[in-house]
Amino acid sequence: MTVATPTALTGSRDAVDPALRSAVDRLDPTGRRLARYHFGWTDADGRPAAGGGGKALRPAFAVLSAQAVGAGWQVAVPGAAAVELVHNFSLLHDDLMDGDTERRHRPTVWALWGAPAAILCGDAMLAAATQVLLDVGSPDAVQAARMLAAATQELIRGQHDDLAFERRVDVTVEECLAMSAAKTGALLACSAAIGAVLAGADPQLVAVLSTFGAELGVAFQLVDDLLGIWGERQLTGKPVGNDLRARKKSLPVTWATTYGGAPGRALARWLATDGPDSDADIAAAAVLVEDAGGRAWAAEEARRRLSLAETALAAAPFDPAARAALFALGRFIVTRQS
Amino acid sequence: MTVATPTALTGSRDAVDPALRSAVDRLDPTGRRLARYHFGWTDADGRPAAGGGGKALRPAFAVLSAQAVGAGWQVAVPGAAAVELVHNFSLLHDDLMDGDTERRHRPTVWALWGAPAAILCGDAMLAAATQVLLDVGSPDAVQAARMLAAATQELIRGQHDDLAFERRVDVTVEECLAMSAAKTGALLACSAAIGAVLAGADPQLVAVLSTFGAELGVAFQLVDDLLGIWGERQLTGKPVGNDLRARKKSLPVTWATTYGGAPGRALARWLATDGPDSDADIAAAAVLVEDAGGRAWAAEEARRRLSLAETALAAAPFDPAARAALFALGRFIVTRQS
Repeated sequence: MTVATPTALTGSRDAVDPALRSAVDRLDPTGRRLARYHFGWTDADGRPAAGGGGKALRPAFAVLSAQAVGAGWQVAVPGAAAVELVHNFSLLHDDLMDGDTERRHRPTVWALWGAPAAILCGDAMLAAATQVLLDVGSPDAVQAARMLAAATQELIRGQHDDLAFERRVDVTVEECLAMSAAKTGALLACSAAIGAVLAGADPQLVAVLSTFGAELGVAFQLVDDLLGIWGERQLTGKPVGNDLRARKKSLPVTWATTYGGAPGRALARWLATDGPDSDADIAAAAVLVEDAGGRAWAAEEARRRLSLAETALAAAPFDPAARAALFALGRFIVTRQS
Repeated sequence: MTVATPTALTGSRDAVDPALRSAVDRLDPTGRRLARYHFGWTDADGRPAAGGGGKALRPAFAVLSAQAVGAGWQVAVPGAAAVELVHNFSLLHDDLMDGDTERRHRPTVWALWGAPAAILCGDAMLAAATQVLLDVGSPDAVQAARMLAAATQELIRGQHDDLAFERRVDVTVEECLAMSAAKTGALLACSAAIGAVLAGADPQLVAVLSTFGAELGVAFQLVDDLLGIWGERQLTGKPVGNDLRARKKSLPVTWATTYGGAPGRALARWLATDGPDSDADIAAAAVLVEDAGGRAWAAEEARRRLSLAETALAAAPFDPAARAALFALGRFIVTRQS
């Protein structure tokens, strides 16, 4: 296992970036300016900037899913751009809803330009995702747009649940896993299948790729939750402890309060308090999650999901090189530090 | 001229309501509950309620546009539901951005359930609009979905401009008309053409219907701006004076400050102040808009746009009954009191 960035990520970014930039170019002037900043292409003053635009995992999955069914990467490009637009639409809105002022080491869009601008920029990205796909003009692209809209609805349902869980004290591990499957799994499942859909692949192969993405999506969320508590700010680009501070019922936290004995019960009592919390309070809460076994369980569950994803993919006749690259992406998701 | 509700409005509501309700039924549980309240179908506790869901102007235009090209109303239903979903997505987000706590005589969704819930409910409605159209499965429906996505982008551009204008003191009447054409005209143009698109009509007829809707859209905004200053709260369901209080560069205000002589200059000076404003301040500002000629100009410009719309429609071979109903809707828009 390695935590080096898989080559599929850099390769697909180069392949998809022009389509993504051209979709952003078509937004209204304000949305365009904010989106370019959000994607890391410019600084807050509109001057060109290098990097900082996230991992572009979803475009990589989209491109590899076309290659997995024997098609060229080109056919996947509109799907790759569309899933990345939907992902970033959700980031723009979620950062606002969660009150997060920092992402990828930079101020978030709403923190710089205010809530209305961030809402509208997200709205425009969501509409642009549909446009990118329908511009293709093929029945396969229409099918891809339908799949993406359904995934978007799931993602919204997951975010609704995530917010609702913050106000509840009785969230079960099953509810929390279902929320992650909706919030993160649905769009990753769509990403890992959309290239194959655009290539007109057999629905059974599409279904396998979708299952692969869905399992990895939950693994991704488990690792995200772990990084939200124990990640290094320098690597993640986000202030550590925000999730605990917001009383988010993240997966390790929910496991800890449900199955974690005495430290789990102590954690539950702390979660029922209102704050404000000192850094020491947050650090103590993190220790409780770990002592209650939440950290070990989440890491193991992420590995188990990766294994389920790999088993699904191994059983169907995909292009070997693309499959190997999908496996590498899966392992990257589980071992990443940011 | 009459201000009675045109029969097309009640008729199309009955025709489109089942499709709209079924689209809302497919939203996530939270989005569904909030959308049902927003549409006036339930009260805040989820109990069935009667009416209060707005005029449903856009569905009426959609249905009539199919009939105008000789098709049955049924073919327009997915388009009618989709434009109404996009319209209400924008209301949910705009109410939040504008800080409006009341609509249709009831608290707005964000005022009752908070900003995140309103953002997500709007997002879900936008995605649902695409789904309703793509579920149809015809190339005409794909074309309709593309037209709707383009109109949505225009609408977002208009809202961006509307918000930006609040912070500017040099907005021209032309800029303000362009903003209204984007914010209100684009979706009305789409609504007045989408039924014809779904019916597979000649693109030239579609273009005429779109022009008709675009002109009426600006007329609608002019009347909306007038009602925002001089409407009766009892009829409009909104607190009067909010637009002035927010220093909105509405059309009558912009005309007044640009061409309105001494009272216009006095108005401009007041607009440059920060508030807070008493009710008497707002009433005095309204008198300045009127003395500066802004009220008379806006009313006359609305009538002129109606006339342009009617002229466009009269010149093409549409079904006479549908055309008469479209004319009635246009006159209703210009003479309405709410």
